[in-house]
Order: sequence, then structure tokens, then C-alpha cells
Amino acid sequence: MLNNRTMQEMPEGAELKGRILAARERLAAQQMQIKEHRIPVLVLMEGWGTAGKGRIIGQVIRNIDPRFFNVVSLEKTTEEEMRKPFLSRYFTKIPEAGKFLFLDSGWMEDVTGLYLHKELGTEAYEVRIESIRRFERQLTDNGYLVVKFFFHIGKKEQRKRINSLLEDIDTEWRVSDSDQWQNRHYEECMEVYSHYLEMTNAPSAPWYVVDAEKKKWAELQVLEALAERIDTALQNHALAVPLLQNVFPLVKMPKLAEIPLDAAVAEGEYKEELNRLQERLGELHNRLYRKQVPVVIAYEGWDAAGKGGNIKRITEALDPRGYEVHPIASPQPHEKARHYLWRFWSRVPKTGHIAIFDRSWYGRVMVERLEGFCSENDWKRAYNEINEFEKELADWGAVIIKFWVQIDKDTQLQRFELRQNTPKKRWKITEEDWRNREKWDAYEAAVNEMIQKTSTVYAPWHILESVDKKYARIKALRIVTEEIEKAVF
Amino acid sequence: MLNNRTMQEMPEGAELKGRILAARERLAAQQMQIKEHRIPVLVLMEGWGTAGKGRIIGQVIRNIDPRFFNVVSLEKTTEEEMRKPFLSRYFTKIPEAGKFLFLDSGWMEDVTGLYLHKELGTEAYEVRIESIRRFERQLTDNGYLVVKFFFHIGKKEQRKRINSLLEDIDTEWRVSDSDQWQNRHYEECMEVYSHYLEMTNAPSAPWYVVDAEKKKWAELQVLEALAERIDTALQNHALAVPLLQNVFPLVKMPKLAEIPLDAAVAEGEYKEELNRLQERLGELHNRLYRKQVPVVIAYEGWDAAGKGGNIKRITEALDPRGYEVHPIASPQPHEKARHYLWRFWSRVPKTGHIAIFDRSWYGRVMVERLEGFCSENDWKRAYNEINEFEKELADWGAVIIKFWVQIDKDTQLQRFELRQNTPKKRWKITEEDWRNREKWDAYEAAVNEMIQKTSTVYAPWHILESVDKKYARIKALRIVTEEIEKAVF
Repeated sequence: MLNNRTMQEMPEGAELKGRILAARERLAAQQMQIKEHRIPVLVLMEGWGTAGKGRIIGQVIRNIDPRFFNVVSLEKTTEEEMRKPFLSRYFTKIPEAGKFLFLDSGWMEDVTGLYLHKELGTEAYEVRIESIRRFERQLTDNGYLVVKFFFHIGKKEQRKRINSLLEDIDTEWRVSDSDQWQNRHYEECMEVYSHYLEMTNAPSAPWYVVDAEKKKWAELQVLEALAERIDTALQNHALAVPLLQNVFPLVKMPKLAEIPLDAAVAEGEYKEELNRLQERLGELHNRLYRKQVPVVIAYEGWDAAGKGGNIKRITEALDPRGYEVHPIASPQPHEKARHYLWRFWSRVPKTGHIAIFDRSWYGRVMVERLEGFCSENDWKRAYNEINEFEKELADWGAVIIKFWVQIDKDTQLQRFELRQNTPKKRWKITEEDWRNREKWDAYEAAVNEMIQKTSTVYAPWHILESVDKKYARIKALRIVTEEIEKAVF
Repeated sequence: MLNNRTMQEMPEGAELKGRILAARERLAAQQMQIKEHRIPVLVLMEGWGTAGKGRIIGQVIRNIDPRFFNVVSLEKTTEEEMRKPFLSRYFTKIPEAGKFLFLDSGWMEDVTGLYLHKELGTEAYEVRIESIRRFERQLTDNGYLVVKFFFHIGKKEQRKRINSLLEDIDTEWRVSDSDQWQNRHYEECMEVYSHYLEMTNAPSAPWYVVDAEKKKWAELQVLEALAERIDTALQNHALAVPLLQNVFPLVKMPKLAEIPLDAAVAEGEYKEELNRLQERLGELHNRLYRKQVPVVIAYEGWDAAGKGGNIKRITEALDPRGYEVHPIASPQPHEKARHYLWRFWSRVPKTGHIAIFDRSWYGRVMVERLEGFCSENDWKRAYNEINEFEKELADWGAVIIKFWVQIDKDTQLQRFELRQNTPKKRWKITEEDWRNREKWDAYEAAVNEMIQKTSTVYAPWHILESVDKKYARIKALRIVTEEIEKAVF
């Protein structure tokens, strides 16, 4: 049965009061350190209906400055959310550095609810639990403090609370159908909850099962557990975390230096193929909309390799209402304050739509790595985190296409000089481009490592040989149409 | 009938082609100037179903770098959106400075649709049109370029296109019920559309009625009109715009200097009243949730006037799942790149919820005015813009409560010194607070002007005399409970 981690006896009256006051003061002092060390804190409140989660959140936040916290009640999944991968509803809500987020029930309630009501089969349910484990681990690995409470009350106590709420016209609306259902199926729920708690009980994000039959006692358990975890987080802050072994099947990829770059296409053939493939892609876009298949295309490549023109040949073929191009520059402050994948989770397409990323989450293992914008532990961890991210997209049913647009160093120089010498193109070339060019070898090594480590079978890299830009465009169009064809027929 | 602003004859083949090429090049060049001058461009495409809006958007964006535009298809209003004021769905989507946003149908389709299907009565419809006029004017007054196209085709042409789409299994899904309905009620729709176009045809955001029976011709009309409007916008950029006369009934308010500050409350009475009012507020929160009444509370006041403690006494009484506190600091880059009310429109509460703003949109006429963060024309215009904003909230049914927390200059000095000398409180005082204090008189004049000009009958200011903070807290609680009572009983 439930393993009560706060396994203590409720203290007597005066001691209870004294410890509550002490814990409140401790939390009030800790909030300043949380802010100072820019630790994001996610407090997840799960548990039985009528166990008093909302009331306790109300009590806990009294000790925190309103500028430092948010409370979010996860309501019914919206239609928009249903058209996104299931983690997106949660990942997009994570707190900023230095702030608390209190979630009044979250993914546990959602996922166990679907399973209990047979809207998820056992296998799909286990896959979701695995996703949740990864999600919470990604947060804690990236410096988030994740504190999880399960509010526990007995069947009789719940019945009593439900009845008492129903007696008063001012409170009867607080009893939901789901509370009633839970109470009628208490034993069945208990079994599912226990299993869920066990499966998601990670050392870095353990469960606190709160004995919630007495209000003050529940408050004390939450306050003390929270304070304890904050102290630990402050101590462990910015420590490196262990790297995980890769568990995803990989495709063997060549090194950049091994790739011949003399492929080219004649003008006549180019025009013909371009027209044919664009027409085909237009039809497929139509079809994937009807079949509600989402598509994610990521472009990476050398400066001046021809990403922009390549993307344009794709988008020309598409209905503008069904795709978006996301140019990815350096993150803005509100983006930097969160997990680096947050801004990509927020840009995941809806089912039936295409999202094209002009540069992507791979910045983590290229520019952020080489410019020292993240720690060594951060970028070394990122290969796996990215594979996990793309796995979520793939499991959701997305077509994932990743392009590396490849040219050699001489070709880049020619194109830089052309840009510099053509007034209309001069805006395209910056000092930064020249600086990056000086680091060509370091970048090449990083790109090789990235391509080796993230070419999973469900999201392999495709190399676009782009010394002849036309060749690269035709190749990209061909891959995009082929990959979409596989998914919609 | 429809007043065709592009009233021209379609040119012959070669001329048509030549002019399209010229307009495309012109647009490609203009995008760089739009970016350079940081002009946000909103292109609204409205019109008959099957008139080809999406196709033309596809054509137009070919000339623009994907980093500089977004295309948004407004889909069915979501449940979340239905719980917000109607302009919020549009205001939250406005483009950033230097970028294009193409809207594939927007507020015209929504609002005329509701009216045609009798979901909006005539009076409510006219109110919405007035809101839309204000919304578009607020955008253009604040430097937005708003270009509005209505794609026009005849009844027979629409019938023909619908039938031809229905013939093919790959395209039949493109015909919506609404297209069919429109064609059956063509004359009735025509009348409503004509009236709408007339009513919303402002000099700063005129309608272009596009003859959309021939594709290339439609493209040319759009490209040329767009290019023309961009040229005008580049010329008029950053010019002052006329100030509007106030049209909202105002409440007469005292000047700050006239307000006696000796009001106080005894400790015993304070505790008793605090308990009584908080309990009452808790009940009311419950009730307003059930009645789905939204509440917006804005706090402004001198540094160290006691805003934080005052807000705390309100939130202590509330269910944390039903309110949010929004601390408002200086805007972040992505906020600065949009209309200054954008970040407040994005924080409007849902029906049944309470949003408390710790500082607010009034920063425009205080700190932004005094520190020169906006032009004189900007802040002078803001009084009316803010009254319009709050009118939208009031018409939607929101309870709006605005507090000015008032102390005198000596009291502020005492509190600053106390903060400086108390280690635990030192983080609350910054160099900036001392600098602001030096500008007390200028701020006082600005606050007086603000209170006079924005105390509308639907959203008057309330002064909280806060030399005795306890008195101010009781007064705030009393006002909040009274105002909510008026709305929920």
C-alpha cells in the first residue's frame, strides 16, 4: 500500500502549532534564496477529491510573496491541447527560474483518470508513465526542484466530506462527478494510485504521501517536506548530474568529411522536378490535414549553406493556413528562465499542421556548447534529452524530418564575400558569421557528435549536399514528400 | 453597395504580369524597411468563403522572409476564449514590431457570423462594431499598420467554386457548412457585410474590396494596395496622432493633497473587521465563481505605501484556484515589441476568476511618462486608451476596482529608513526607490491627472489612506466585498 514518506505521528496541540509557525518562517526565509539562486520550484498537489489540496495551497502561499509564485488549476483538457502531444500541456506550464508554481493536480490525475475510465489501455498507460518519469527527470536534471504531494484520506472520511459539502447550497458545486465516482470505486482507485506512485517515485522527485484527515497536521507535513526539499535543492544547486546511457536505437551516420559534395542537378531537370515535387507536396499537405498527421521539420546547417532558400521551396508548396516557420534566434529572457526545450514545446504544431524550424533545439549541442552558454554537463545530457523529446513527438504520431545543410569551407567563403559585395544581400552577413567561421573545426566536431548521437530510427538526420543549392532543394523536397507519404497512406 | 477602393479595370495579360512582378519586388524591398523601422503590420483577409484568401496569402508571403511574418487562421472560438472579453482573442494575437501578421479571416467574420446566425442581437452587434473601431484605431494610433482586404465574388461564382470543390474527394472537405449557408443567404450576407465595411472603414485603416473572381488580378490588387499602404506607413512613421476628446462619464475626484491621512483603526477593531470581511470575501469568491463573474483589481501607489501587505489581506481570503496576482515590472523585450496594453490583455482573468495587478497599465501615464519611455503623444493618448480598455472589461461584465495607496512624503521616508536598517527587509529597497522619491512632485502631478482622467463611472479610482496600513487594509477589503456584492446578488 501507500508508502507514507512523512511517516510520523501527529504532534500534540502546542507542539503542532509551534512547528507550523517555525516551518512558515523557514519557508518565508527560503523564498529569498530560491529567488537569489534562480531555482524554479514546481509543487505538484495530487490526491483524493475533497482531500483539501486547494485549502493547503492557500495556506502555504501565505508565506510567499505574490511576485514569486503562481497557482495553476489544471482544468479539463481543451480541444487545442488534445491536438498536441500529451506532455505539451504540462511542459508549457513549467515555472520560471526563481519562482514557485503550485499545480492543483496535474499529470497524475489526468493520466490515472484516463486509465481508470478505460480511455487508455494498459500498454498506452505504461508508455505515459514512462514519459512522465522522463519529463520529471528532465526537470530535476536541469535544476528544477520538483516536490510531489499525494493527499490521502480514507474512504469513509471522503464520503463524510462529500456529504457535508452537498448539504449546503453554497458548497454543493464543489463536489464533482469525479469525486463521487472515486468514492464509489475507492478500492480500484487506490490500487491504480498506489501503482502510479510507486512507478513515478524517483530519488530526485520522490512522493510525499500526506495524511490529510486533519487540516493542521496536513499543513505541517507539507510545510516541513517543502522546506526540507528546498534546503536540499539549495545545497545541490548547479551540481552535475549523472549522464544516462543511450536507450534509443540509432542509425549509423557518416562523418561530414566523408560526404562527397559534388552532387548537382541540371537547370532543366531542376525546374521539372521542382514543379513535380511541389505539386505532390501540395496534395500531401491536404491529405495530412485530413488525416490529422503533424509534421516537424528542423533545419540546421552552416551559415550561408542555403537554409532559407531551401525552406522557401518547401513552403511555396504549402497552404499558408497549415504551416508555420519558426526562426530560432538566441532565447529571450523569459525563455532563458526556463528549461531550454520549453520554447520548442511551446511551438509544437497541432495535428494536421507542419512546423518548420529554421535552426532548432540542436542549438544546445552546437552554439550553446561552443560558446559556453551552458555547462559541459548540460550539453552532454542534451543528446539524450533531445532524443526523449523527439520520441514523445514520434509516439504522438508526428513525422519528424531533420536536415543538416552541408557545404565546405571554401564555398562558405565565396558566399560570404558575395553577400558582402552585394548591397541587397549585405544584411544577411554579420560580424558573428565571420567569428563563427573561425571556429569551423570545433563546430564540425560538434556537428559530427550531434549527428551520431541523435540519429534515432524514429528521427534520423538527413544530409543535404548544398554546394549546388538546387540539388539540395530537390533532395529536401523528395525526402519531405516521401516521409509524409509513408505516414498518410 | 460595396465600395470598391481598388476601382480599376483589370489590365491585359502582359501588363498584368509585369505589374505583379514589379509589386512583388517592391514588397520584397519594403520588408527590410518594415524591419528597420520596427513597424508591426497586421494584414486582415476577410471575404466570402471560397474567394481564395488562403491562396493569395500563400502568394504574398513568397516575397517575405519567413523570419518576418506569421500566418494565423482564426479557428472556432475555444471554450477558454469564450470565458474572456471578446476583443481578447484578437488583441493577444497582434504582431511584434517589424513583423507581418496575416490573419486568414478575423473579427469581421466572427462578429458578422454571430449576427447573421442571430446569436447576437442588433444592439449587442453595434456595441461590438464600436469595440472593433476602437481596437483598430488603438493599433494604428500606436504605430501599427493595419491593412484590411475584403475578397469579393458574386453569388454564381461562389456556387460554381463550391460545386467544383465538392466534385473531388481531395477537396470536398474544403467546403464548410458556413460556405454553403453563405451562398444560400447571399443577399442577406451581402447586406450585413456592406454595413459592416462601411461602419469600420476608418481613414487610418480603410477597407480594400478585392475583385476576387480572377486569381492573378486579385493577387495584383492585394500586392499593390499593400505596397502603397506600407509606403504611407513608412512616411507617417512616428508622427503624433490627434488626441480624442473624452466620451466617458467621469466621477469627480479629489486631488491627493486634499486627502486627510489621519484615518486609523484600533487593534481590536482591526482584528475583528479583518476576520469578518475576509470570511465574507471567501463566501463571495465562491459565489462569483458560480455566477462566473470576472473581477479585475489594480493596485497603484507610492513605493512603501503598503501595496504588498494590502494585497495579501485580500488573497488570504481567496481560494488559490480562483485568483492570480500579476506583479508588473518593466516590460520584457517581447512585450515592449507590442502595444503596451498587450501584456494586460494577455492577463485578463477568465469569467469567475479574480486577477490582482500589483502595478498595472497605469505605468504608461506615470513611470513611462516621467522617465520618457514613451512620447508625449503616447501618454497623452493613453488616458482614453485605458478608459476604452476598461470599458471593454466593464461591458463584458467584469467588476473593476482600482486602488491608489496613498501616504505622505515623510511617512515614505520613515519606511525607507526602516527597510534600510532592517536586514530582513533590505531587499525591498533599491536605489531606484530613492531616485523615484526625488521626483515626488512630478509624480504627484501625474497621479492627480491620471485619477481625474480615468475615474470613469464604470471604473472609478478608490483612494486607500495608508499611513495607518491597517486602516487601508480594512478599507480595501470593504470596497472589494461591496463591489463584488453588487455584482453577484
